[in-house]
Amino acid sequence: MASEMAGTRRPGGRTERTRLAVLQATLDLLAEQGFTNLTVDAVADRSGVHKTTIYRRWESRDGLVAAALRLGTEQPWTAPDTGSLAGDLAETLLELVQYFTEPGLRELPTASVLAAFHSPRAAEALHAFYEDRHGRSAVMVTRAISRGEVPAGTDAAEVVRVASGPIFYRLFISREPVTAADARVAAEAAAAAARAGVFVRDSARGGAESGA
Amino acid sequence: MASEMAGTRRPGGRTERTRLAVLQATLDLLAEQGFTNLTVDAVADRSGVHKTTIYRRWESRDGLVAAALRLGTEQPWTAPDTGSLAGDLAETLLELVQYFTEPGLRELPTASVLAAFHSPRAAEALHAFYEDRHGRSAVMVTRAISRGEVPAGTDAAEVVRVASGPIFYRLFISREPVTAADARVAAEAAAAAARAGVFVRDSARGGAESGA
Repeated sequence: MASEMAGTRRPGGRTERTRLAVLQATLDLLAEQGFTNLTVDAVADRSGVHKTTIYRRWESRDGLVAAALRLGTEQPWTAPDTGSLAGDLAETLLELVQYFTEPGLRELPTASVLAAFHSPRAAEALHAFYEDRHGRSAVMVTRAISRGEVPAGTDAAEVVRVASGPIFYRLFISREPVTAADARVAAEAAAAAARAGVFVRDSARGGAESGA
Repeated sequence: MASEMAGTRRPGGRTERTRLAVLQATLDLLAEQGFTNLTVDAVADRSGVHKTTIYRRWESRDGLVAAALRLGTEQPWTAPDTGSLAGDLAETLLELVQYFTEPGLRELPTASVLAAFHSPRAAEALHAFYEDRHGRSAVMVTRAISRGEVPAGTDAAEVVRVASGPIFYRLFISREPVTAADARVAAEAAAAAARAGVFVRDSARGGAESGA
């Protein structure tokens, strides 16, 4: 989410400039100090926007962080197109690994994951970010279906979860190093499972349940 | 880790009883209040062990939490044996899902994951716990190899990471519900990738690199 959050939606308007200044200051402070140390006062200082304005629009520290995290869904991320599902997933995961491991980049996404433990509104914003990413990633699977690589009805969100799960597992659960080689293995694993038809939704199989 | 941490290693000894009382009180408070609110004073109160004793043995709040989390590696978890790798993984993941979602159970493991963000010593302890689990899970893959289900040289730790990754991804990254059906899909996915040979270590392929 980090660098992707730096852009603008409708540049020019004063309200929009204020919004971006406040949310960018929030992201900067989140990355520098973490969620538990973040204050509205510090955001006001950093952005040069008066704190009554901030409270009027975002209500609280939690509201501010949630809005800042949602900025990520406004950015123009496009899924890679390498010619194979495994290749597309590998490129996506290499970007993910870089983003969550490189000093100077990793602070914000790590703070975002952590904020969701402390704030239900941050958790909802994180959820919205990844839901958006699942939607934008679907084209990788659609193309793989049309190439005949994976069966029709393959659930794209599940492919993304299985591909990126092992990366996040290493980062935040087993607390192990994550390398580019790990990204490639995880991409290959998700692609192999997809080819084997593991992610075909029940509805696509003709079952009674509707797909997720 | 939760209920598995309640047992004893060498019951009877007074030092051992004190150790377990303190570490169990730490786990209880961690589950109830989380890492950031935990204090050595509260652990002393809860365990009935004087805080100078606690400081002498564990040095700090961080040392105490790390030792408490390591208690999990002393417990006798055994991998299931259902007759297939997918079945074994599904059973392991169903247990994981229950443990991380059921009220009354989920608080401690969730607090453990969170503690690792705040304390490098807690992160090391979490790492040791999952490393231990990777080791204990290896037998599922060894058996699958001897049944001819998956190729020789399949990296058992990687199978576990890919199987459990999507569960943790839903819990802590995309913040989505996790169901038994999700556990079964994740188990099938890891087993399918293993059958396809994705997790065969480079060393087992005769490559120059040694396996993890």
